[in-house]
Amino acid sequence: MRVAVPHPAPLSGTTYSPVELAPGNDRVVMLDQRELPQREEYCELVTHGDVARAIGDMVVRGAPAIGISAAYGMVLAARTASGEFSRAMAEAGAEIAVARPTAVNLAWAVARMLEVVAGIAGRPAAERVEVLAAAARAIHRADADANREMGRIGAERVPDGATILTHCNAGALATGAYGTALGVIRAAHAAGKRIRVLADETRPYLQGARLTAWELARDGIDVTVITDNAAASFFGAGAIDLAVVGADRIAGNGDVANKIGTYGVACLCHLHERPFYVAAPWSTVDEDCPTGASIPIEQRSPREVTHVGSVQLVPDGVAVQNPSFDVTPARLVRAIFTERGAIEPVGPAAVARRSPRHGR
Amino acid sequence: MRVAVPHPAPLSGTTYSPVELAPGNDRVVMLDQRELPQREEYCELVTHGDVARAIGDMVVRGAPAIGISAAYGMVLAARTASGEFSRAMAEAGAEIAVARPTAVNLAWAVARMLEVVAGIAGRPAAERVEVLAAAARAIHRADADANREMGRIGAERVPDGATILTHCNAGALATGAYGTALGVIRAAHAAGKRIRVLADETRPYLQGARLTAWELARDGIDVTVITDNAAASFFGAGAIDLAVVGADRIAGNGDVANKIGTYGVACLCHLHERPFYVAAPWSTVDEDCPTGASIPIEQRSPREVTHVGSVQLVPDGVAVQNPSFDVTPARLVRAIFTERGAIEPVGPAAVARRSPRHGR
Repeated sequence: MRVAVPHPAPLSGTTYSPVELAPGNDRVVMLDQRELPQREEYCELVTHGDVARAIGDMVVRGAPAIGISAAYGMVLAARTASGEFSRAMAEAGAEIAVARPTAVNLAWAVARMLEVVAGIAGRPAAERVEVLAAAARAIHRADADANREMGRIGAERVPDGATILTHCNAGALATGAYGTALGVIRAAHAAGKRIRVLADETRPYLQGARLTAWELARDGIDVTVITDNAAASFFGAGAIDLAVVGADRIAGNGDVANKIGTYGVACLCHLHERPFYVAAPWSTVDEDCPTGASIPIEQRSPREVTHVGSVQLVPDGVAVQNPSFDVTPARLVRAIFTERGAIEPVGPAAVARRSPRHGR
Repeated sequence: MRVAVPHPAPLSGTTYSPVELAPGNDRVVMLDQRELPQREEYCELVTHGDVARAIGDMVVRGAPAIGISAAYGMVLAARTASGEFSRAMAEAGAEIAVARPTAVNLAWAVARMLEVVAGIAGRPAAERVEVLAAAARAIHRADADANREMGRIGAERVPDGATILTHCNAGALATGAYGTALGVIRAAHAAGKRIRVLADETRPYLQGARLTAWELARDGIDVTVITDNAAASFFGAGAIDLAVVGADRIAGNGDVANKIGTYGVACLCHLHERPFYVAAPWSTVDEDCPTGASIPIEQRSPREVTHVGSVQLVPDGVAVQNPSFDVTPARLVRAIFTERGAIEPVGPAAVARRSPRHGR
């Protein structure tokens, strides 16, 4: 079912939100990001299967936002769980966790919710839903708070007058609120710095053109869309001062998986001696993944490349490869901004030092 | 006026041609490349103004092909020239030459045709048209021959089993026949080398997805389309052995202007220690342009970025920049293949050594 108005509970102070749990805990309301910028339309989802499908179909995208969506999906699962509660929830969690492979936040949020499940198995059904809803909303709120904090930390590195390149969308639409990379940009703007943003359009899914441009324009932040191809020429002309992006998974050594094309931006920063920054909540850090080589890279449908809407771009029968993410090695990343402080110089020691596991 | 069948006079042994002068010298027949790969449709152009507009609107594109189109346009101009012949032709030439700014072949072909005009001013009108038609066809044939020769030279650098990245379309569709970068690929294939081509889709105009894929698939050469964003990850995985591209203008010091995104490919080759080659006829070399900094870079309409067909990709009111070309500095180019031999190491001395001006 589709509704025309946003659910009015964003944490961001904006009039939109990628995902919310309705007050009655019976529906997840999700902005259909596939329709932006042409239509601002919300879906209502009533089962955890609906949520898993919406994640797989990219109604919602962005590692933190799909983590929050997964947590809300687990609330819906609790409403309809039959048989042994813990087992039913584990099965629902498994179904949600495989909706997309690269972002670790998805598995992280499911695991967090299953920890809560373990403590409430004996409680009445209605109470279980209440407890899980509170836990999911806490994940959402913590993500929003983390973004504010990493935005504050990252904004210190943004010089007044800077032109900032960003790739894909790591904004309010990709997170609980405020954004990771766009949180850094929002915080710099809020601090009165005069900044200009170049948004790579980010083929094939065009999150930069469609979503980053939409968000920043709504906030009155100076944004110009360029093709991914044009970024190099702006670097060559000395017109970019720094790049900041989000992350889908960060390995224990600081390697960063993010939207396809991110590694190319990092290469350009390296060659042109400009800092390349990553902003991500700790839920994106996967310390059990030793290096980027262990991060699974999602291969998405060729159709994302061969067609835009009904317009065919590639001749029939021609092969297409469509990896959705790439890995940027830690040595190309100047710093990773997290709510636990900046990881810098990026490497296993600095990751371990910021880790909540540290000193355990 | 549109016709449904190709004019049957390509020099390439293929069943298509980007541009031909009809046997009666009264029409230019041009494949409408904007419609590929969905439709293979030809336009008939009857005035030099039609040709200038077709070049500006990118019915035909590719530096050598627009040079040949310009020469044919001058034949049409001779048919309708009134008043003083040389002056009328100079005016027509000026109109054609400004249709697009970056490719030097356009101005080169017009200048070549005006040299011919200077020698035939006193001749009867019908004879002037005959002479100019022969000169224009000679330009076309020379370009096709040049491509065969640079293909032969370039193919020597392609190892058996190589995976080759190319950007934009520097093929039969962009030239008189056979192609420059794709000429190198065709020659390697014809020599029995087992090669695989990765074609960057080449936003915003998608010449790689639409045209390079179409050409190579028709020739039975193994081609896979990727987004421009994905190229870096293939380099990172060691899956690309070399890159070869065409050129729109080459400065006297060996700097290369080519389709936007080419500089990014050259940066990736440099960082991953893979050779970056350019293939171009001497008509693309502008020795009067000392460095790439003097090459005018065409800025095209934002609409190429904001829309694909009727699908809107960028929100209303958001700024877009759409430079159509970039400049790759000579130091990033391993060699430039021309019909006069390879320019290597790329720099002013090697350009001068290959130049037809050499020793004058």
